[in-house]
Amino acid sequence: MIAVQLEGGRVALRKRARPRRPPGFALIRPRLMGICNTDLELRRGYYGFSGTPGHEFVGEVVEADTPALIGKRVVGEINLACNACDWCRRGLGRHCPRRTVLGIVRHPGAMAELLTLPEVNLREVPKALPDEAAVFTEPLAAACEILDQTRIPRGAEVAVLGDGKLGLLVAQTLLAHGVGVFHAGRHAAKLAISKRAGAEVVAHARKLPRARFDWVVDATGSAAGLREAVSMTRPRGTLILKSTVHGAVELDTAPVIVHEITLVGSRCGRFEPALRLLRTGRVDVGALVSDRLPLEEAPRAFDRAAERGVLKVLLENGPR
Amino acid sequence: MIAVQLEGGRVALRKRARPRRPPGFALIRPRLMGICNTDLELRRGYYGFSGTPGHEFVGEVVEADTPALIGKRVVGEINLACNACDWCRRGLGRHCPRRTVLGIVRHPGAMAELLTLPEVNLREVPKALPDEAAVFTEPLAAACEILDQTRIPRGAEVAVLGDGKLGLLVAQTLLAHGVGVFHAGRHAAKLAISKRAGAEVVAHARKLPRARFDWVVDATGSAAGLREAVSMTRPRGTLILKSTVHGAVELDTAPVIVHEITLVGSRCGRFEPALRLLRTGRVDVGALVSDRLPLEEAPRAFDRAAERGVLKVLLENGPR
Repeated sequence: MIAVQLEGGRVALRKRARPRRPPGFALIRPRLMGICNTDLELRRGYYGFSGTPGHEFVGEVVEADTPALIGKRVVGEINLACNACDWCRRGLGRHCPRRTVLGIVRHPGAMAELLTLPEVNLREVPKALPDEAAVFTEPLAAACEILDQTRIPRGAEVAVLGDGKLGLLVAQTLLAHGVGVFHAGRHAAKLAISKRAGAEVVAHARKLPRARFDWVVDATGSAAGLREAVSMTRPRGTLILKSTVHGAVELDTAPVIVHEITLVGSRCGRFEPALRLLRTGRVDVGALVSDRLPLEEAPRAFDRAAERGVLKVLLENGPR
Repeated sequence: MIAVQLEGGRVALRKRARPRRPPGFALIRPRLMGICNTDLELRRGYYGFSGTPGHEFVGEVVEADTPALIGKRVVGEINLACNACDWCRRGLGRHCPRRTVLGIVRHPGAMAELLTLPEVNLREVPKALPDEAAVFTEPLAAACEILDQTRIPRGAEVAVLGDGKLGLLVAQTLLAHGVGVFHAGRHAAKLAISKRAGAEVVAHARKLPRARFDWVVDATGSAAGLREAVSMTRPRGTLILKSTVHGAVELDTAPVIVHEITLVGSRCGRFEPALRLLRTGRVDVGALVSDRLPLEEAPRAFDRAAERGVLKVLLENGPR
């Protein structure tokens, strides 16, 4: 089969043996895959990664231990947990210290003709949900995670910084949750998506409001963005770090301590709330798709995804 | 009257006019004052400070609008709030944006023969509590603030990093709250105070446990300490930033995001829980006193307070 391979900063296509399906696992043929900022980071060698990337997909089960699964359209939780440790017993396999992660940590990703995942990781996609929406389940789950970790009251006003894919999903998720959103970013065209959904948007702001918000989400992925986010947070407020990894940044802890700000690191989320939210149709993920290319054009698709102004680029695994 | 004056890195004694007492304010004669790490920072010019420092004191009311206050032994909340804004109405005058702060921000401090504070800031000291204990009300309130901001369950195990004055007060406060304390620091003699109170202590640890604690308090005041604290926090755990100001530090946000750690900035606290805790006698503040010098020897007292291994240095305002 064909698989995308990241190696030394390059995106290549390789012939690979059909993956072996261990007991408890399903063999899945992905139909659509999303390129995430993390994939672009992996291409740059982040995590010392080399291998097949891809953790956003919707696909069809080809083989499984459970016969009822075969032929089903599914999305898949990306953390492969041990199912035995404390974390797993508490339903937090996403933090299992022994986990591997689809397309990120020691488990080949979805950008291939076939992939494997444990059956327990799979969630069936409701019939009414097209592939083009279902492929956003994983990143939308990351946005929904904010509502699992915090108790943002309905009617609150939340500032979202950053108008990348994740920032846009976060803004819409919060709006659907019934809170007001003030969305600041650098691209009027991207922010228009949030504006249509009901957010107050500000592009290229010279000066953002200081100490105004009880809730702030930093989805900029930059040290400057994090600094800005701290300054926008009110005393005793909560700032959610919702980003592809920042790495080491200069953080001035003085305002964090003096204003007793709470910073909440936030990563992957449960798929169920994301699937429910997609079914309501209250999140316009279609507007986030910038391009759609066949799997064979993965190298070009990665370049396209890295262009300024581009949002989600999808890879398609056409019938062969 | 005599007042300590910080100016250009020096500690001087100056003659000053007796302070004017505005309406609603009390004139107080401090009996004992504590030198805090913040005072040492102020001496170094932090906050661009020059003036009379001192925000830890116990004293006697000399003049007040309320006759019943006169002659009373009191401690005083250090934030002078406007009592009109949203923060003040919510009982959080400690975050009032218009506040001044005793001995720190535009209000002369307690290291003088006399000081003024609003009557509403004063708390009467119970008779049973000696000056030597009452003078710790303010720093102990800062330790108690942790329990106001978080919900650490009784029986939990909390790691405390840093064995300075604040770290030692935090450890004892947590022990009194009924949680287990793992206290790591660099001075066996200081940690002995926590050990006597029931903590597990580790001095000069080469390798501290990684990802073991759901609750961690960083009271090191150093960037290296903060890094260590992050690495000791379990996924989904809470790390309380309880320090005299760090300033700008390199923080690797990657583990914070990946492990979904919550960082809570923590500063001053309410005086009531601290006074209650002092009355129980369950916090041994006496062990924290390294030295006691007359107000007139403030320059020497500051030098002493800055020496390695020294904990609290008290200044005494003797009868004149």
